[in-house]
Amino acid sequence: MSRSIDLAVIPGDGIGQEVVAEGLKVLSAVLPQDVKLETKEYDFGARRYHATGETLTDADLDALKGHDAILLGAIGDPSVPSGVLERGFLLRLRFAFDHHVNLRPSKLLPGVATPLAGEPSIDFVVVREGTEGPYTGNGGTIRKGTPHEVATEVSVNTAFGVERVVRDAFARAQARPRKKLALIHKNNVLTFAGHLWTDVFNRVAEEFPEVTTEYMHVDAATIYLVTQPERFDVIVTDNLFGDIVTDLAAAVSGGIGVAASGNINPSGEFPSMFEPVHGSAPDIAGQGKADPTATVLSVALLLRHLGYEAEAARIDEAVSADLADRTGKPARSTSQIGDALAVRVAG
Amino acid sequence: MSRSIDLAVIPGDGIGQEVVAEGLKVLSAVLPQDVKLETKEYDFGARRYHATGETLTDADLDALKGHDAILLGAIGDPSVPSGVLERGFLLRLRFAFDHHVNLRPSKLLPGVATPLAGEPSIDFVVVREGTEGPYTGNGGTIRKGTPHEVATEVSVNTAFGVERVVRDAFARAQARPRKKLALIHKNNVLTFAGHLWTDVFNRVAEEFPEVTTEYMHVDAATIYLVTQPERFDVIVTDNLFGDIVTDLAAAVSGGIGVAASGNINPSGEFPSMFEPVHGSAPDIAGQGKADPTATVLSVALLLRHLGYEAEAARIDEAVSADLADRTGKPARSTSQIGDALAVRVAG
Ligand SMILES: CC(C)[C@H](C(=O)O)[C@@H](O)C(=O)O
Ligand SMILES: CC(C)[C@H](C(=O)O)[C@@H](O)C(=O)O
Repeated sequence: MSRSIDLAVIPGDGIGQEVVAEGLKVLSAVLPQDVKLETKEYDFGARRYHATGETLTDADLDALKGHDAILLGAIGDPSVPSGVLERGFLLRLRFAFDHHVNLRPSKLLPGVATPLAGEPSIDFVVVREGTEGPYTGNGGTIRKGTPHEVATEVSVNTAFGVERVVRDAFARAQARPRKKLALIHKNNVLTFAGHLWTDVFNRVAEEFPEVTTEYMHVDAATIYLVTQPERFDVIVTDNLFGDIVTDLAAAVSGGIGVAASGNINPSGEFPSMFEPVHGSAPDIAGQGKADPTATVLSVALLLRHLGYEAEAARIDEAVSADLADRTGKPARSTSQIGDALAVRVAG
Repeated sequence: MSRSIDLAVIPGDGIGQEVVAEGLKVLSAVLPQDVKLETKEYDFGARRYHATGETLTDADLDALKGHDAILLGAIGDPSVPSGVLERGFLLRLRFAFDHHVNLRPSKLLPGVATPLAGEPSIDFVVVREGTEGPYTGNGGTIRKGTPHEVATEVSVNTAFGVERVVRDAFARAQARPRKKLALIHKNNVLTFAGHLWTDVFNRVAEEFPEVTTEYMHVDAATIYLVTQPERFDVIVTDNLFGDIVTDLAAAVSGGIGVAASGNINPSGEFPSMFEPVHGSAPDIAGQGKADPTATVLSVALLLRHLGYEAEAARIDEAVSADLADRTGKPARSTSQIGDALAVRVAG
């Protein structure tokens, strides 16, 4: 049987180039001989925006659509006004390809530093809704720039959108040993959206009697993430709360240098996209200082999504071993870390 | 000269009763003989809601309006559906009395445990907008309970509302030794509200050339709060982001047992309200287990607001001394802590 992966690669801005190169290095090293890997690189981000004014065109989407998956480095540069690339590229892609499951695992691996005292045991995954909530770009501004300006943002939540992501989270919780699922929202203040989320959550819970559930307000959740992170197994939450808690989760479980994410379209109608949680870090770009681990772990998520479970597990193990080995050693360059991981997954 | 404080006292639900009693004990002990303290207790919260169906009536607001300030314990009980008391009492009061400066100091005092490793130095204050943003209750639901339900939440932001709170925060930063102010928002995604906040912030900054400013996205802010909390001096942010970052800030700087807050109407047109950040904690209510420190520190904020700076400082010092003294000692009851603080402020 001959197998193949047709990958769209978007290095993007800043350190994106460097970390994606290492991600691909590890991907090539881990794949069995019989799997044909094809990659096509796309130039998106600040350079393209400055050259053409474009962020992501319909033709781009058509081209990307044909791939099995997308690997993204990072998008964003201080030379571009805030929001242009985020809304024009990253969010446009997530929405166009209906990436409604934004998957962000947090695991504190042995040997990895955490800002938390003690030795917390952290191993949970956040299922962040990716196509609704305050991220839809609904809203507007009147009397802009005047003392009477009014600016609104509309969070849009649908039973359809909430139910599919809640269902995905329950299925993930059901498949894990601890079988726990926490819903994070702010249903005591955002009562319209909050009650929709809570009602749907409680209804779907009846289909998963083995899953232990809890509800927590987003403010309280930030407290638990630093005082009792071991409490969490699977978390499901809306787009904005998910953005916030996953950065905090990354911070407590080893930093955004090791935080991976998948923007998943579970039906497979569109390619899913995998990217490190960190940004383009223009301050250290081009210096070989970026840690490619988050990208390599995103490659593992990508492989798992495409059905290459054994290869994904080999990457996870290689990363664990590499991180455990770092203590007391001098810092390595981006490509040195990539090389080391490539050797480990191949061996 | 004869002075007086006419205080509305709202013990509320759960531990609210217990902690407010200690707050008043310390308040009486710290006030000079010549200050006449009058208190009137109001019964709001779950009990009243169950008995009458009322949360806060126009007549209640009229009565409260006559006081110099309000001391609140906590509102909330599991027997009341989520949102009823929050929207019907707490937020109604904040909005009716135009409490647009929600002030939440975070200071890690010597001897106080933090979940963070190392010995971070934490001393900042969050100025949270209190009358706009996603808290306005704008939004709604259609096709409720059906597979086609759509629920919206509208964040409303006005130049008027943003500018007054930003200006307040700049003035506070200007008055502090480090003179630093950080704006927290998510202007790369919530571009309508985000740009209003950023534009107003940058414009007001020109009037405060001595204040060093920075902007940070709310997700990144949660990272800094656990990895570099010493970075912050004054933070200004919107109502929802402020809710989230102040709980996290409380968690890293000693827990919500010591987190105080003021809901301030700076013009004095309406009485300001002071309350601990923690909730009603029904699980430990009535057992004398609650730490009244957050309420006592809220009393200090109240005194400072009314111009009793020396008395406020005495409470702050008493709390510092009490906390520094706790290590290795057996836990005390709510009233024992209140007694100890009352002795310290009197002495
Ligand atoms: C860059 C930004 C649009 C994005 C988000 O808010 O989703 C990022 O913070 C993330 O978490 O992937
Ligand atoms: C109880 C709730 C309405 C409130 C808020 O969200 O403002 C609380 O969390 C707070 O921070 O004072």
